[in-house]
Amino acid sequence: MVLSSNRVEDLSTHACNEEGFELPISNHDVPPLEVHRVCLPPHKTTLEKLRQRLLEVFFPDDPLHKFKNQTCLMKLYLGLQFFFPVFEWGPQYNLKLLRPDIISGLTIASLAIPQGISYAKLANLPPIVGLYSSFVPPLIYSVLGSSRHLAVGPVSIASLVMGTMLSEVVSYTEQPILYLQLAFTATLFAGVFQASLGFFRLGFIIDFLSKATLVGFMAGAAVIVSLQQLKGLLGMVHFTSKMQIVPVLSSVFQHKDEWSWQTIVMGMCFLAFLLTTRQISTRNPKFFWLSAASPLASVVLSTLVVACLKSKAHGIQTIGHLPKGLNPPSMNMLYLSGPYLPLAIKTGIVSGILALTEGIAVGRTFAALKNYQVDGNKEMMAIGLMNMAGSCSSCYVTTGSFSRSAVNYNAGAQTVVSNIIMATAVLITLLFLMPLFYYTPIVILAAIIITAVIGLIDYQAALRLWKVDKLDFLACLCSFFGVLFISVPLGLAIAVGVSVFKILLHVTRPNTGVLGNIPGTQVYQNMNRYRTAVRIPSFLILAVEAPFYFANSTYLQERILRWIREEEERIEANQETAIKCVIIDMTAVSSIDSSGIDTICELRKTLDKRSLKLVLANPGGNVTEKLHESNALEGFGLNGIYLTVSEAVADISSLWKTETELPI
Amino acid sequence: MVLSSNRVEDLSTHACNEEGFELPISNHDVPPLEVHRVCLPPHKTTLEKLRQRLLEVFFPDDPLHKFKNQTCLMKLYLGLQFFFPVFEWGPQYNLKLLRPDIISGLTIASLAIPQGISYAKLANLPPIVGLYSSFVPPLIYSVLGSSRHLAVGPVSIASLVMGTMLSEVVSYTEQPILYLQLAFTATLFAGVFQASLGFFRLGFIIDFLSKATLVGFMAGAAVIVSLQQLKGLLGMVHFTSKMQIVPVLSSVFQHKDEWSWQTIVMGMCFLAFLLTTRQISTRNPKFFWLSAASPLASVVLSTLVVACLKSKAHGIQTIGHLPKGLNPPSMNMLYLSGPYLPLAIKTGIVSGILALTEGIAVGRTFAALKNYQVDGNKEMMAIGLMNMAGSCSSCYVTTGSFSRSAVNYNAGAQTVVSNIIMATAVLITLLFLMPLFYYTPIVILAAIIITAVIGLIDYQAALRLWKVDKLDFLACLCSFFGVLFISVPLGLAIAVGVSVFKILLHVTRPNTGVLGNIPGTQVYQNMNRYRTAVRIPSFLILAVEAPFYFANSTYLQERILRWIREEEERIEANQETAIKCVIIDMTAVSSIDSSGIDTICELRKTLDKRSLKLVLANPGGNVTEKLHESNALEGFGLNGIYLTVSEAVADISSLWKTETELPI
Repeated sequence: MVLSSNRVEDLSTHACNEEGFELPISNHDVPPLEVHRVCLPPHKTTLEKLRQRLLEVFFPDDPLHKFKNQTCLMKLYLGLQFFFPVFEWGPQYNLKLLRPDIISGLTIASLAIPQGISYAKLANLPPIVGLYSSFVPPLIYSVLGSSRHLAVGPVSIASLVMGTMLSEVVSYTEQPILYLQLAFTATLFAGVFQASLGFFRLGFIIDFLSKATLVGFMAGAAVIVSLQQLKGLLGMVHFTSKMQIVPVLSSVFQHKDEWSWQTIVMGMCFLAFLLTTRQISTRNPKFFWLSAASPLASVVLSTLVVACLKSKAHGIQTIGHLPKGLNPPSMNMLYLSGPYLPLAIKTGIVSGILALTEGIAVGRTFAALKNYQVDGNKEMMAIGLMNMAGSCSSCYVTTGSFSRSAVNYNAGAQTVVSNIIMATAVLITLLFLMPLFYYTPIVILAAIIITAVIGLIDYQAALRLWKVDKLDFLACLCSFFGVLFISVPLGLAIAVGVSVFKILLHVTRPNTGVLGNIPGTQVYQNMNRYRTAVRIPSFLILAVEAPFYFANSTYLQERILRWIREEEERIEANQETAIKCVIIDMTAVSSIDSSGIDTICELRKTLDKRSLKLVLANPGGNVTEKLHESNALEGFGLNGIYLTVSEAVADISSLWKTETELPI
Repeated sequence: MVLSSNRVEDLSTHACNEEGFELPISNHDVPPLEVHRVCLPPHKTTLEKLRQRLLEVFFPDDPLHKFKNQTCLMKLYLGLQFFFPVFEWGPQYNLKLLRPDIISGLTIASLAIPQGISYAKLANLPPIVGLYSSFVPPLIYSVLGSSRHLAVGPVSIASLVMGTMLSEVVSYTEQPILYLQLAFTATLFAGVFQASLGFFRLGFIIDFLSKATLVGFMAGAAVIVSLQQLKGLLGMVHFTSKMQIVPVLSSVFQHKDEWSWQTIVMGMCFLAFLLTTRQISTRNPKFFWLSAASPLASVVLSTLVVACLKSKAHGIQTIGHLPKGLNPPSMNMLYLSGPYLPLAIKTGIVSGILALTEGIAVGRTFAALKNYQVDGNKEMMAIGLMNMAGSCSSCYVTTGSFSRSAVNYNAGAQTVVSNIIMATAVLITLLFLMPLFYYTPIVILAAIIITAVIGLIDYQAALRLWKVDKLDFLACLCSFFGVLFISVPLGLAIAVGVSVFKILLHVTRPNTGVLGNIPGTQVYQNMNRYRTAVRIPSFLILAVEAPFYFANSTYLQERILRWIREEEERIEANQETAIKCVIIDMTAVSSIDSSGIDTICELRKTLDKRSLKLVLANPGGNVTEKLHESNALEGFGLNGIYLTVSEAVADISSLWKTETELPI
């Protein structure tokens, strides 16, 4: 107990001589200054650790927790619900839910039909494929999907990526059959890729497309696509199939003689109409139906106009004949061997991953609004299976569309039944209404596409990125310009590279700082940030804010030595007490590897030679474990590791006190 | 003050009812429970932040600190010292230092001459190039280098990498001139690459070759090289130029008729001799001279034996005629345009980076032993300039050799003058002693190479990696098998990929855990690790041990919700008080990006809907700043952010107490 009282005394003179505070006094025989031992985490074998690690990597959501402590029959039923969410909501479905579902289903159908035709055009596919894709996939999703508000069908991003990547190699005008085959094959591979991501629980891969990357990518894609739509808007016949900004712009002005004033007038009128309704709906969500109904209204109106002016409107290109009837099977069109297979696989993976990103993000957004959970991996399997089935029934890549899902949500959809209603409406269109599209002008599809993709340019998000995180903004710019000037996959790859580089930079050059004591507390905080924090004489307390890894071990060693050098220079200038002990606060050091351990040992030896004591405070569980396993802790001895900085300061000060008192 | 006393009371009933502790009582009118504000770091403009960040990335060691507050003349002198370290140690050099330098210089020369010839053979270059490379580069390094113990010259790793990469494309037997040209060109690019890494202060790039990667790579390379030396050891003439294990092994057994028993007997004897002396020196560092002298002794002895048995030893291949004289200039041999230029550049970069890694690591190791600093970036420039000069004077890639530097250190070297002595010894050899190597058998070079590279197989390091870090071990295995079965650059790339993947995995799946209060303190620690830690009723305290990034924001959100779910299940089972507040300890969250901010906001909204309060404790400087800039802090309000977990617990408990008392 003599030592203890010494320690307390010492603490009051050293650590707290400016503001002063008394140490906690316990009611339970705890000595006044108790030094708490740093514990190792509970011992586990390598296999147990591996198991836990794998569980944490692949099953962080513990998907089987519902199955615990259940009877066999119940487990079977829960399993059925797990794989087919329809069994979850189906039994509770009633007529009260049906009414809003019908309304929202019809609303999204009125949007899905013109958008389906337009997006198929965007992918350079026959317009009818867009309608096929709005029929089969929603039905499959309604059985497998777990989001209640997702409106499934073709989307702009996936369509344009598929259109770009395929048409850069294969011409859709010269080899239409091959092009179609490749589109279906790419859809198959997209589906297989999506489903396997979900099945192997690798969903976190899509997390690497950060929001910053996507903001830039979508803006770049929207610019390119809008410019490409000038072909339809100006009524041109010859146009480049390339997707970079330079060839597209030169293409527009190369064939000025093809510009048709009738098309331009019509296109501009309807574009203005569509943009206005969209603007109104954005400002006032109550009028969501305005932007939802305007595409169908435009199609109907423009078709009527063209049909009436038949003879006088030669310059206006129309869709022409569309075949009646349901989706034909397309199994025999899959292109599974030959020189273009790698192209199909690449296109499938890139469009699949983008479709997945949109689908999952949309599902999560609306789930959060209604406070229910969407299981990412399960959704991936649902979207993947839906695309696999789609590729065999003349559909191309589909996913949950952001614009239509928002309309669906606003129209009051309650369950995925709204998708079934929408599919039924598309079915009726396919069976009976196809001749009505004969006179629909292509310019109207261009206007619909432009309206849709302009919404993808989220300059406010980009501004926010600039404000919050400059490196995020850089990733955003990279993907924007990468897509504009290089190509879609390369632009994306560069942006992912920048994002990963950002993580690596953070690890390679972590923050370090000097800590000081906040008077009246046992709290130690960065001196640069907390102006009230005071230095403890004879101590230099450093915080390291990153794992100790091979990538930063040299840096950290140099940086810590520089902190010591600077502190010594400061002390010399101010004639203060010299440093005797360096404490490293390891709270934020979440992990360590063999290089990090070597660095710490080396640092300890270097400081030893300069008669400085190195102390670690609060090393984390696995850090302590690894230091222990590598015998690095032995070098530190009893007074080398503490639970908190304040205990370290108190105990070491009291130790010095004892040492200096000893000779007396 | 009523509120304050309420708070204290509440704290004692809620937070501390199990062990109990009193709050610090201040002498200075500080209220009993003071809640400290979380500060923002001092305001800085974007430019200032960028400047600081760039300084931290590129000048973490503050290389110009010596120049501060100096006169112009002094600055000039310091600058001269900075670029030519010879001006630093030169003026203080004296005869007392010269004696040990001469001894160590002669010792490493006796090692450098046979090794130089052997390593040139390893790179498939004429033996004389190895001697040339032991003459010019050491002289240049002695002017520019800052390490005192580095022994400069050709090294095994860089030699074998150059040999492998070049000879897979160009045959050194069929196109010897082109091969030599490419080797010099690769050396030039290696030098340019090394010097620019140093000049642009990108030295941290070599940190990405982690120790684990290097251990595996060197072991794999050593195995391959040892097997390749079977050609010399068995006296074979036909042999594959490939470097994978399968073709090399099949090559050995394909031409069994070429095996020469005389060569085998001689090779085995000297190999046994070399390995024995090496073993003795390793066990007892006092006998370092034994392993240092044995190569030269072997060369002399074997040359004598062959010279004596001239007529009877037909099967033994010898080096043959070597040209006398100094390094001829090789400027005219640089291959700067043509189809093989990319090969030369690639070879230069890979061998350059490996040479650099060895040189820097060796320099740092011996600097740490003698407690002086080696500036990594300056060393890179020195090594790079030395190779650039070397490429113009018939030298190939050189760097600081580990084995010779160790001998140099043990022999008592004091400064780089030992390198000058060594170069002088090589000079004399080049001028006068070349004919003596006429009868030197090639088998002896094979034996020297095997002895050298076997030392690179550090199975103990691999074992330690397995013990400490399984993923490090995996990176080690990847580079080992990658080099054995695929190729040197690909094996290295895979290993670097694994190391980077490890960093990403750590960020993607960070540790999270429930914290509990250690009775009698204000410390909160992981409940899983500290068995004494107790839960605080109504609170769930979670720690997140990684930056909040796009790569983990989805995971963290799910994981935190799962912790809450599990805690609620546990509480239901045990019938404890329900959770009312979730505190996230952000101490180890060293950084945040826009996705992370969105996640926190979304989490707060989700918890709000479930009537749970979300509180952040101790967010770091830049995290607080970013939360503030993105207006995310507004949602948290006054009681949403605290400096420490214990203050949050105390303050919120007292708040609840006040609220429940209010109706009364």
